[in-house]
Amino acid sequence: MIIDCHGHYTTAPAAHTEWRASQLAAFREGRPAPGYPAISDDEIRESIEQNQLRLLRERGADMTIFSPRASAMAHHEGDLRVSEQWARACNDLIARVVGLFPETFIGVCQLPQSPGAPLDASAAELERCVTELGFAGCNLNPDPSGGRWTSPPLTDRYWYPIFEKMTELDVPAMVHVSASCNPVFHATGAHYINADTTAFMQLIQGDLFADFPGLRLVIPHGGGAVPYHWGRYRGLADMLGKPPLSEHVMRNVFFDTCVYHQPGIDLLCRVIDTGNILFGSEMVGAVRGIDPETGHHFDDTKRYIDAAALPEAGRAKIYSGNARRVYPRLDQALRERGL
Amino acid sequence: MIIDCHGHYTTAPAAHTEWRASQLAAFREGRPAPGYPAISDDEIRESIEQNQLRLLRERGADMTIFSPRASAMAHHEGDLRVSEQWARACNDLIARVVGLFPETFIGVCQLPQSPGAPLDASAAELERCVTELGFAGCNLNPDPSGGRWTSPPLTDRYWYPIFEKMTELDVPAMVHVSASCNPVFHATGAHYINADTTAFMQLIQGDLFADFPGLRLVIPHGGGAVPYHWGRYRGLADMLGKPPLSEHVMRNVFFDTCVYHQPGIDLLCRVIDTGNILFGSEMVGAVRGIDPETGHHFDDTKRYIDAAALPEAGRAKIYSGNARRVYPRLDQALRERGL
Repeated sequence: MIIDCHGHYTTAPAAHTEWRASQLAAFREGRPAPGYPAISDDEIRESIEQNQLRLLRERGADMTIFSPRASAMAHHEGDLRVSEQWARACNDLIARVVGLFPETFIGVCQLPQSPGAPLDASAAELERCVTELGFAGCNLNPDPSGGRWTSPPLTDRYWYPIFEKMTELDVPAMVHVSASCNPVFHATGAHYINADTTAFMQLIQGDLFADFPGLRLVIPHGGGAVPYHWGRYRGLADMLGKPPLSEHVMRNVFFDTCVYHQPGIDLLCRVIDTGNILFGSEMVGAVRGIDPETGHHFDDTKRYIDAAALPEAGRAKIYSGNARRVYPRLDQALRERGL
Repeated sequence: MIIDCHGHYTTAPAAHTEWRASQLAAFREGRPAPGYPAISDDEIRESIEQNQLRLLRERGADMTIFSPRASAMAHHEGDLRVSEQWARACNDLIARVVGLFPETFIGVCQLPQSPGAPLDASAAELERCVTELGFAGCNLNPDPSGGRWTSPPLTDRYWYPIFEKMTELDVPAMVHVSASCNPVFHATGAHYINADTTAFMQLIQGDLFADFPGLRLVIPHGGGAVPYHWGRYRGLADMLGKPPLSEHVMRNVFFDTCVYHQPGIDLLCRVIDTGNILFGSEMVGAVRGIDPETGHHFDDTKRYIDAAALPEAGRAKIYSGNARRVYPRLDQALRERGL
């Protein structure tokens, strides 16, 4: 079984995206948001069958842990109330996708974060999504300001309400920023990767997992710059008087495989224990073209994992074992299907 | 010959660092800065002989392209006038090091940047350092706000005065941030690496080298996250309708080898053309400890280059040929010594 831990609904029906624009326009003009539009099951089915489902089948994967479009979370827009409405609309739409394709998708929710706002609303929405919609985790934005970086580090108590709820529900978070409103940071070329690197270094500096020993965080895009600079991070942990990374953070932190070329995946598999790597592609996502050097899509990361020098047991962990361990509610759902 | 393109004077005499503290205190209190202290040649000699020079000899390198301590540039402190005084003091001290050890060091200058201030003062200081002090290049801070990221991208015309002066003098810049005053960004674990990644993506998005075809930029720390995510950057360039990276940016952009473990260096050498890699260690710098896995210093990057699967011609380019090409004033100085 091959589980892609990192897929966003980037192909959501136009009416959904148009509603968001109307919602933000209404906010700016001080009006209440319009009613959410009717979207038919056929529209949703078509948007999935022609895209994610087709590609999953072509590439040979079985399931995707599926969440709302990351770049559209845009927590820096509007206010907490706007983010609550938007997160609920996005999560309900994911639940409909899962309802239509229950064997292929399991939901992960967007949180109603807003710069400076407390995280109680996020904890409540996570609880709703897990207990009522059957979701298996959440995406946590370490920079809801969208490239202004005004929130405290993830190890700050500001974030504890969401970590407490995640612990209570036994679900992980993927640490994933959204769009950048800072012109220095290209969203998918700089902001995403920087956020991954930044979050990992915050975890080294702090001691979050002493307070939350069961907390699990997936750092996407292959861990940002971290595996490439693994010696730097081992050395910095040592200079900061921290235990080795294997004890200090790697019992709780996982990297996905959204690294879009063979040498990158080879490095990831050489440096990071296979128990900490989850298969992911982020398709249909940031990089949609075909690599002229291979003739295949850049984001067809299964090809790289298949070609990597890995023992079969390690590959199996990357493809499904780790995902079932990190997302126990996914494991439970699969067991209920006899898988 | 082995040239380390990336060394900072992190071991400068205490009186120099104390003067900076006094200068900033005077600024805060509205007083003029105190006079710069007397520092003897012996103090400078000792600070170098026991540190950089000893390590260069132990590790088997010959020269270092040497600049003021990057984390102490702190362009976010004070104002333009304060940065001008501080840059001049730092650069004059580097000139003294070079004067005492002319066979081992060549200078690269700190620029008097200040958030929002025009770059004319930086162009003037660069000219002074090159024409009067014999320096070979400069360090350019893409975020003088120190982690607030308030400046425009490097491709913006805001930066053109320094690029024009660099072109006129035929000297390169290393794109290097300083300390972070934003608590989310650990300086050497996040801010440095993020800045490298961010700068590279800005260069992909823009078309800077159409305006400055001879401009040369060294992106340190192995290019941040870029080589690890080379497929992502090739794919994003394609999505943005840009030419292949080899044409669009890699005629003008170079990465150093400040990657502190063998797998990272192996990836760098596998992915990036050897014509674009300059040997660097940033010693004595960010990561000072000994790797328990190897028994050698993390930042002894020569060991990794020596062990990398490279043709000898490629290794020679990394060790000296590229540095002499990117820093023609260094090449000229070496030729004058018959090297």
